Amino acid sequence: MPGVVEDSPLEIAIVGGGIIGLSLAAGLIKQNVNVKVYEQAKGFREIGAGMAFTANAIRCMGLMNPDIVSALRSGGSVATSLDKNDPNDYLRWIDGYNKRRKDDPSHQTMLFKIDAGYKGFEGTRRDQFLEALVKVIPEEIVELKKRLDTIEEKANGRVQLKFTDGTTAEADAVIGCDGIKSRVRELLFGSDNPASFPHYTHKVAYRALVPMDKAISALGEYKARNQHNHVGPNAHLIHYPVANQTMINATAFVSDPNEWPDDKVTVVPALRKDLEDAFAGWNPCLTALIRHFPEKLDKWAVFDTWDYPAPFFNKGSVCLAGDAAHASSPHHGAGACCGIEDALCLVTLLQQVNATLATTPTTKTKKAEALAAAFEVFDAVRRTRGQWLVNSSRRVCDLYHQPEWGHPQKWTKAETCFEEIRDRSLKIWHFDYDGMMRDAVARYAEKVVVGAAANGSGVENGTAKAKGAAAMAGVVEVPVAVAAN
Amino acid sequence: MPGVVEDSPLEIAIVGGGIIGLSLAAGLIKQNVNVKVYEQAKGFREIGAGMAFTANAIRCMGLMNPDIVSALRSGGSVATSLDKNDPNDYLRWIDGYNKRRKDDPSHQTMLFKIDAGYKGFEGTRRDQFLEALVKVIPEEIVELKKRLDTIEEKANGRVQLKFTDGTTAEADAVIGCDGIKSRVRELLFGSDNPASFPHYTHKVAYRALVPMDKAISALGEYKARNQHNHVGPNAHLIHYPVANQTMINATAFVSDPNEWPDDKVTVVPALRKDLEDAFAGWNPCLTALIRHFPEKLDKWAVFDTWDYPAPFFNKGSVCLAGDAAHASSPHHGAGACCGIEDALCLVTLLQQVNATLATTPTTKTKKAEALAAAFEVFDAVRRTRGQWLVNSSRRVCDLYHQPEWGHPQKWTKAETCFEEIRDRSLKIWHFDYDGMMRDAVARYAEKVVVGAAANGSGVENGTAKAKGAAAMAGVVEVPVAVAAN
Repeated sequence: MPGVVEDSPLEIAIVGGGIIGLSLAAGLIKQNVNVKVYEQAKGFREIGAGMAFTANAIRCMGLMNPDIVSALRSGGSVATSLDKNDPNDYLRWIDGYNKRRKDDPSHQTMLFKIDAGYKGFEGTRRDQFLEALVKVIPEEIVELKKRLDTIEEKANGRVQLKFTDGTTAEADAVIGCDGIKSRVRELLFGSDNPASFPHYTHKVAYRALVPMDKAISALGEYKARNQHNHVGPNAHLIHYPVANQTMINATAFVSDPNEWPDDKVTVVPALRKDLEDAFAGWNPCLTALIRHFPEKLDKWAVFDTWDYPAPFFNKGSVCLAGDAAHASSPHHGAGACCGIEDALCLVTLLQQVNATLATTPTTKTKKAEALAAAFEVFDAVRRTRGQWLVNSSRRVCDLYHQPEWGHPQKWTKAETCFEEIRDRSLKIWHFDYDGMMRDAVARYAEKVVVGAAANGSGVENGTAKAKGAAAMAGVVEVPVAVAAN
Repeated sequence: MPGVVEDSPLEIAIVGGGIIGLSLAAGLIKQNVNVKVYEQAKGFREIGAGMAFTANAIRCMGLMNPDIVSALRSGGSVATSLDKNDPNDYLRWIDGYNKRRKDDPSHQTMLFKIDAGYKGFEGTRRDQFLEALVKVIPEEIVELKKRLDTIEEKANGRVQLKFTDGTTAEADAVIGCDGIKSRVRELLFGSDNPASFPHYTHKVAYRALVPMDKAISALGEYKARNQHNHVGPNAHLIHYPVANQTMINATAFVSDPNEWPDDKVTVVPALRKDLEDAFAGWNPCLTALIRHFPEKLDKWAVFDTWDYPAPFFNKGSVCLAGDAAHASSPHHGAGACCGIEDALCLVTLLQQVNATLATTPTTKTKKAEALAAAFEVFDAVRRTRGQWLVNSSRRVCDLYHQPEWGHPQKWTKAETCFEEIRDRSLKIWHFDYDGMMRDAVARYAEKVVVGAAANGSGVENGTAKAKGAAAMAGVVEVPVAVAAN
């Protein structure tokens, strides 16, 4: 049936050209989906801050499209450990506050360490990764300066996007990867619904890059050259080496019982003095480190979707992924990893939709129905984990900030938190993405019951077709690989 | 060397004749340890309340001594599910508060369900189980009316117990299984240390047995006949059928921001009216159920060791186990299961001590040294998990009592707690006791380095001897079985 809409390739509009939007686009290209990415900025909008991906998330990238992994590594990704004697990556927690040794007030007690294995994390700069990721995707796919205004479902089952510059675009479905301040989210839930917007976590962050020699003079050689998370009453400070060990990237988080005055402005100028006040009475190593922060620096209000989670991630042909669906505070350092898991799930499902359309007389299963089913499954498979991460990130920050760290009689209680922190970290690092993919395929097959046997038309990816047909025949336990890695 | 103390069987004094003390005694008997149990009461002190053990904890009992499992079952243990169509046991959470359906105010939303599998739990009455457990142990092992006063380490490496009746006893080591108000704990940490005593969890409990016909009239047939946990703002109510489905056992827990006035008196008379006030405005099913509680009932203050955990479980030849080591609130229903895990760990370690003494010239490793090493390993292997349970029980109760259950705009947030509750439940149910035993054996072997090769003298249990020797030779990955099951 040439010329009929149902017979043409899937067209997906991705709103947002961040790391998740572009990774998803790279994954969908491999499935012969027609993708467009609409980005509101003039260029790519990530800032130059550091970020790290878990080995698990990097495997998810490889399953979507190995070029994403190449982009990550070409952008200068490095294993976060630079210790020649021990190549594994660790997370370390150290007592930032109390003075257990009167004879050595700068002594800090190591509290806990988790081994993430060899290349457990790979760090990169957001802007560098994004720049490399853009090159993975054909240039014509991305449209810049497109700020989404509205989305309308049309009578023919298609979706129309209107942009604030007055232009429009059409697609079979829209996936909102437009981050914590997602417009797609607001359109789904309505401007009067608190679930449309992120809310204040009552934590503020101060960041600084400190030259390595100054960091060593404050912290000592070992601490300066390795990641450490200093915990204490109502605050914590985390640092790790960057720029080939010439600097450390240090971020201090401070509890704030007050409301944040303005949801629109979440970064405000501040003084080092504010930070010094928050860390007054802490271990001298930390007060010394903070003296190397610039006198004037930014204060970031941390927002998330903890108070008002999205009640669903999908509606018809519209779907949310990444921070747009579940914006987490950064305390697990895993928000982007969770978004990558989302993208892998969507790629897996849209592969199934392709297979449905290829093997079904088009009068039986329409694109819009198959896409709605796929997004329904995405919601069922991903919402629990996405929101769990938001909750868990809040929780671990509360544990880092326990007031008990300040009271000698309560140190023992405070220290009992690490079994929970370990469990939460392992739940992130050891995510069963194969299980997720199998689950998604099986649930989709339950929803999209096709009458006809596979006829093989219209899909060029033979693997996708075979997997789709197997799933539709009710075979659940197929090993699923979206793309060779 | 007959006649020399070092050459005689191990003598262990267990303080406390509760379920953990007697199970431990039953396990040690199998290892040819000379055990004495000192119980302060005139008889056995468990009350007639219901309790349930996980399938996992029952396997731990079997590894210590299969007679413990027989005692549990002879005492009338039953699988908690009585549904003929579905023999599995479940935990169920249901919305006890809100009214989502205006047309049906008594509608309750099922929130979450976890499948514990076939015979996932086996319920019993504490007093019945204890009575059967006593019969597993030779009569002369237990001494009643022995209230511990002090413990003294003697010059010969032995330990002397003094009782409040003026009598004394000696042993090679003392294990305190004397529960939440443990005297052994107080002796270890000192009367001026808050870690010596349990503290108020700021929750009170009200219990009642309600005849099944009345429960059905309030809740409906299905809910009355199956376990349900009704959650809501600042309170929850849990019930399950007992006495062959002729009654339900219902317990309501209510948050209390105040301090508890008297640590000595933790059960006080109360009125149903107090409970009605706490549940005012809840779902009509619950207010109807509470009307079937007696007009006068007891209020239990729930205490635990969350605020001031034990900084260690062992000191020399003295060790704590079960609630004496880590007293949990009852919200996971797993305090006794965790105590059974402790007992299995101690039996495993004392088997190793026996093997050390049998294979080592007595001049090299003395009993006191081997026992101190075993208890040191017990602390390393068990303290984290024991205290995790205390923390986790507090945490799940906080999640059950979220104020957000009371606010329609925050129901979505409240409901996101179940992934965490599931993870916590599975951590309890799927405990890797084989791993714990291997870990304990390996750590003990690291501490007790023996010069001489195994000589096989003095130990009658060949399996124990072989395992001990293997462990001492540095073989870590031996599958360990303390007793055939």
